[in-house]
Amino acid sequence: MKAVVYKGPKEVAVEEVADAKIERPTDVVVKITTTNICGSDLHMYEGRTDLETGSVIGHENMGEVVEVGGGVERIRVGDHVSLPFNIGCGFCRNCEAGNTAFCLTVHPDPNMAGAAYGFAGMGPFAGGQAEYLRVPFADFNCLRLPEDASEKQNDYALVSDVFPTGWHATEMADLQPGESVVIYGGGAVGLMAAYSAILKSASLVMLVDREPDRLKLAKQMGAIPIDDSKGDSVNQILELTNGRGADKGCECVGYQCCNHHGQEQPNLTLNNLVASVRFTGKIGTVGIFLPHDPGADSEMHRQGQIAFDMGKFWFKGQKMGCGQANVKRYNRQLRDLIHRDVAKPSFIVSHEMPLADAPEGYRRFDAHEDGYTKILLKPAA
Amino acid sequence: MKAVVYKGPKEVAVEEVADAKIERPTDVVVKITTTNICGSDLHMYEGRTDLETGSVIGHENMGEVVEVGGGVERIRVGDHVSLPFNIGCGFCRNCEAGNTAFCLTVHPDPNMAGAAYGFAGMGPFAGGQAEYLRVPFADFNCLRLPEDASEKQNDYALVSDVFPTGWHATEMADLQPGESVVIYGGGAVGLMAAYSAILKSASLVMLVDREPDRLKLAKQMGAIPIDDSKGDSVNQILELTNGRGADKGCECVGYQCCNHHGQEQPNLTLNNLVASVRFTGKIGTVGIFLPHDPGADSEMHRQGQIAFDMGKFWFKGQKMGCGQANVKRYNRQLRDLIHRDVAKPSFIVSHEMPLADAPEGYRRFDAHEDGYTKILLKPAA
Amino acid sequence: MKAVVYKGPKEVAVEEVADAKIERPTDVVVKITTTNICGSDLHMYEGRTDLETGSVIGHENMGEVVEVGGGVERIRVGDHVSLPFNIGCGFCRNCEAGNTAFCLTVHPDPNMAGAAYGFAGMGPFAGGQAEYLRVPFADFNCLRLPEDASEKQNDYALVSDVFPTGWHATEMADLQPGESVVIYGGGAVGLMAAYSAILKSASLVMLVDREPDRLKLAKQMGAIPIDDSKGDSVNQILELTNGRGADKGCECVGYQCCNHHGQEQPNLTLNNLVASVRFTGKIGTVGIFLPHDPGADSEMHRQGQIAFDMGKFWFKGQKMGCGQANVKRYNRQLRDLIHRDVAKPSFIVSHEMPLADAPEGYRRFDAHEDGYTKILLKPAA
Amino acid sequence: MKAVVYKGPKEVAVEEVADAKIERPTDVVVKITTTNICGSDLHMYEGRTDLETGSVIGHENMGEVVEVGGGVERIRVGDHVSLPFNIGCGFCRNCEAGNTAFCLTVHPDPNMAGAAYGFAGMGPFAGGQAEYLRVPFADFNCLRLPEDASEKQNDYALVSDVFPTGWHATEMADLQPGESVVIYGGGAVGLMAAYSAILKSASLVMLVDREPDRLKLAKQMGAIPIDDSKGDSVNQILELTNGRGADKGCECVGYQCCNHHGQEQPNLTLNNLVASVRFTGKIGTVGIFLPHDPGADSEMHRQGQIAFDMGKFWFKGQKMGCGQANVKRYNRQLRDLIHRDVAKPSFIVSHEMPLADAPEGYRRFDAHEDGYTKILLKPAA
Repeated sequence: MKAVVYKGPKEVAVEEVADAKIERPTDVVVKITTTNICGSDLHMYEGRTDLETGSVIGHENMGEVVEVGGGVERIRVGDHVSLPFNIGCGFCRNCEAGNTAFCLTVHPDPNMAGAAYGFAGMGPFAGGQAEYLRVPFADFNCLRLPEDASEKQNDYALVSDVFPTGWHATEMADLQPGESVVIYGGGAVGLMAAYSAILKSASLVMLVDREPDRLKLAKQMGAIPIDDSKGDSVNQILELTNGRGADKGCECVGYQCCNHHGQEQPNLTLNNLVASVRFTGKIGTVGIFLPHDPGADSEMHRQGQIAFDMGKFWFKGQKMGCGQANVKRYNRQLRDLIHRDVAKPSFIVSHEMPLADAPEGYRRFDAHEDGYTKILLKPAA
Repeated sequence: MKAVVYKGPKEVAVEEVADAKIERPTDVVVKITTTNICGSDLHMYEGRTDLETGSVIGHENMGEVVEVGGGVERIRVGDHVSLPFNIGCGFCRNCEAGNTAFCLTVHPDPNMAGAAYGFAGMGPFAGGQAEYLRVPFADFNCLRLPEDASEKQNDYALVSDVFPTGWHATEMADLQPGESVVIYGGGAVGLMAAYSAILKSASLVMLVDREPDRLKLAKQMGAIPIDDSKGDSVNQILELTNGRGADKGCECVGYQCCNHHGQEQPNLTLNNLVASVRFTGKIGTVGIFLPHDPGADSEMHRQGQIAFDMGKFWFKGQKMGCGQANVKRYNRQLRDLIHRDVAKPSFIVSHEMPLADAPEGYRRFDAHEDGYTKILLKPAA
Repeated sequence: MKAVVYKGPKEVAVEEVADAKIERPTDVVVKITTTNICGSDLHMYEGRTDLETGSVIGHENMGEVVEVGGGVERIRVGDHVSLPFNIGCGFCRNCEAGNTAFCLTVHPDPNMAGAAYGFAGMGPFAGGQAEYLRVPFADFNCLRLPEDASEKQNDYALVSDVFPTGWHATEMADLQPGESVVIYGGGAVGLMAAYSAILKSASLVMLVDREPDRLKLAKQMGAIPIDDSKGDSVNQILELTNGRGADKGCECVGYQCCNHHGQEQPNLTLNNLVASVRFTGKIGTVGIFLPHDPGADSEMHRQGQIAFDMGKFWFKGQKMGCGQANVKRYNRQLRDLIHRDVAKPSFIVSHEMPLADAPEGYRRFDAHEDGYTKILLKPAA
Repeated sequence: MKAVVYKGPKEVAVEEVADAKIERPTDVVVKITTTNICGSDLHMYEGRTDLETGSVIGHENMGEVVEVGGGVERIRVGDHVSLPFNIGCGFCRNCEAGNTAFCLTVHPDPNMAGAAYGFAGMGPFAGGQAEYLRVPFADFNCLRLPEDASEKQNDYALVSDVFPTGWHATEMADLQPGESVVIYGGGAVGLMAAYSAILKSASLVMLVDREPDRLKLAKQMGAIPIDDSKGDSVNQILELTNGRGADKGCECVGYQCCNHHGQEQPNLTLNNLVASVRFTGKIGTVGIFLPHDPGADSEMHRQGQIAFDMGKFWFKGQKMGCGQANVKRYNRQLRDLIHRDVAKPSFIVSHEMPLADAPEGYRRFDAHEDGYTKILLKPAA
């Protein structure tokens, strides 16, 4: 079968690889209909991870089931399914508590928690930027889609990662109807966090970025765009909130956030959030921070540490939750919102491409070319 | 009346001051029966705050009501009451949400939240290490005590601060029955956090310290004492938890935590907690961290920043809650536990003294003299 | 001053009564700008309660503060305020827990909990269908309105009762985004429950009634109207939910619900909810049920008992929450939704009248005249 | 293999039946070491259900794994396991939400939710009062026990049902430390509810019954026994709670509760709970109520309805949760409490018997012989 293969820093290719197949009785094989390029794929693409050459990338997958193992009870050949980017077992302590991003079974390293398709450090699982994908513990990991699966393909395609990841940011921030929220970062995840806040009837949704196409999408959905190239973002937020700060905050950038000189400054968004969220406010952080970052500019940063405003954070009585989204905790309800026409997240999709064009898609997305918000690959097209 | 007055670094005196009196219709005046010296009083005693000379100290107060204002509805002369160290109004947004440590009304500075008796930076309210105390918004701030108020005086005395503060640490860590928890710090607050964990039926309570008298009290109540002078605390905790780490963690030390060389290292306990708490675990931080610490050893620390293991914290999907305890959220239930003989926290009380001996008490407590765990002053004795 | 006075069954009159005035230091007096007629006012109007002749009715009040007591801290003359229909103290155990509908201080009977303006059995407090109203514990009971108070008068007017009561039904049902919900009853409260469900991004909102004007309003806001005069409501709901039943349910009718023959059958809606809500579903009941109903048709009903489908309720593992709405728990956030133009509940307002027309308003509303969904009285007009 | 077989009303026999075996790849077979007789087994024993003659009874099972299917990932031959009485799949909507008592996969009837071993109406699964038991979806349904599995056999034996069921009652009642709680029913489940309340540091635990051996066990664990043959239970509870009523309540009797004349009166305990729990209190009901009860004394009761004090329930703003316990939600933490010596529930075990004595055990237990609180069968002995 054909798949997107990592060849080395800034290079991917579409090549023939071994077919996906049933390896255990609880597996299924899915024919991929849509698989997205994610911002976190770029970390691998740029060579900042230890991803092995030859690996198949892709963790935002959906498709049609074409083969089922003998121990699969619920999923049938022909089912259209969305696949959470995290792979869980369904019976470990974390999965049972809904923390499926931290499954204790699937990753072969017993000191690790969590696994994913085609992701550096998240286990030996092939990615889904390919014609077919093997799905372990299929009864647990497949979300069945209703009869409008094809018609709303680009909406459902976002249910494997960015929509639930944005939603997770607002959940960890404990966002309630009527509250105000500030979101740092207007990429696909930040836009989905803002969209989640609007679906939850926040009264004031502020999104901080500096790229005009992102700020425009924020405004279109009813959020207040905050252009931090036009002035200090914290001051702008305090002004919009009577000097008190936002009730809640979401971090959707991660350790690679840059200051106005284009230099990485990994503590920037978090300290801005501490400053712009009010006393007793809560912050949900889904932007990635790494325990080790060999390519960083200082010893502190190489060890995954940041100069964090702990004094202010403590004094203001704030709370913070972190980490990858537990997609399964939300994907049923987000699917139902799409199915019932309450949500239509595909407004962030900027490009659809056949699998063969993946190398070009990676190149343009990595270059932050204007308007490249979200690329969907269509292997079956 | 007589009161403990701050005279300057490392000096307090018992002097005559103006009598406490009703200033607004919603005030009462309380004759103090017990008022404790708190670890955080030492920050002021040591001159590390901007407390004005002449201020009356003391925020852990209880006593008998001797005068009530005309707008007081519930509290009567003769009531025995415990007074939360934080002063709230009962009707602002934060008080109504139970965040009484962050009252938006009582502190005169509109950019601040929260107020306390006799505390640097927490408003102009006289402390209770005195014969009498004025209590604002008395219907909201007085907790009435039952008929065993005198008999269990030393238990109820801990309901104004350290018992609820320890409890708050376990609440922010979302500690559930059957879980394991590690507590950094074995002072009065850390011991109360451990005791709270035992009352909540944690299955494994580990307390990290290096002072033998504290570790002994931990062991007596059924916790596992972890002596970090005998070996790395993180390793000891991992060993006790099958390598996975504790389910939950509590920080009860604060920015003045010291390494084995006796040097302050404000990130020490927090980074140890991130390392010794498991994936998806939660941390409650009640040890104090300051937004500005002019006396610190580096520019980063002076700005209230620490080198925080954000990468590990994020990767492990942990959560953290911070700040002063909202005493009113817990003091009814803790009072009832004492009243019904389920809890008896006074086992941490090491000394009782008349008010006149306060200067000696401060000196010995500040010197960490062996066995000086908790000092209670008795102005009415 | 002029006020709506209860004269006996089916008779109210606008008469001169003693002026509202400050009685305690914590009171304020409010000049009423809008005061609504509520469905529960009809219980009194119809003579089914023990309301004394001469009482002033009216618990859905808003207006402008004209006088403040000496112990009032926050509220100022000139403030525009919304007044929750329940009167709380702010410092009893129930108020502090957010259960302000069950205040233990305000009602003079120590065996009762909860108080309200102008309401049979809810204490000696005059109602607000009048020119002025005395508000006890004003700092706690007044919700300040922003500068658009006059412009959005009819929206804010619903924040004292029906909007938070509908919201409360969905809160007790623990309604989550993406879920389906069935609401029994399309009066003002049922419509507000449906509107709350839509604001919370329920994926499917079904409202059961048989009056065309109510079903039309339900449809206009995006709910599915279910006309139970056209067929069994339970079957209609099961059909819309794949035979499983709705995730959640709201009871917004109460003990006076009638069957198709127009006979009161107080167990009708609750048993229908048990049947039409799925296994593990939850039900919020805000429709009124009375502990004693002397006018009922059977001994069981007179004692406030109903023939409840306990077997099915238990077997399905359902949960139910009941009672008057704790308005203060929600009124800040609902105010902010209106202020920020996220919510506009006034679409249910059918009539505005001067105070003098109250007798006519009562008569028409009680007669269920077509289109009389919600009447707002304007004493200051 | 040998098993306890239902022969007809009031008759069971130990007979040879077909061996338990692997039927699907996700099954395991467990050699039963302990299997308890449950109060709900008596419903079947007495012939009040439609259990087919020849069925094997027994849903409170533990043992050692002797055979595993090819799709089982975690469970190994030799593991000692506790088996929740409810059988779940781990991947349906209800299981994922923790509602494992209402699994949508395992029961063959698509309109039903939930399944159990050897239980009338709960699917075609053989019971565990036998030498061996087939366990479906074994990775999900087996709780592994630590190295003290044999030593603490009688404690762990209670983790499959009565300990988590008692715990569930207190969870549905949302019991918090420091609160008071009343429990109706002092059988094994009621005693475990009281024990759970004590582990959760309730300040006052009251247990209502009239059998001296049950009341004695209640007293021994630190609860207040309330003998309702000595006076009205509601009055006794109000007296112990300053006339306010208990904060929370648990129903552990069910539809077969009897009045003082020994007549079944299925609304008795629930209406007593409504009367003895305070305004805003919550009630957890784990005693069984049936949708249909053909043997009942009135048409209302035959339809599974009761004359419920809905008026008082609503007026007091109470909440109620119902249904079978989701054992998996609690069994890890309860196991850990036993393992760490915090809990020792086996104090309720009155008898241990070999499997062969099951008929005698059933007879004596059904006759309520004095001291027959809980019988454990030991097939492997």
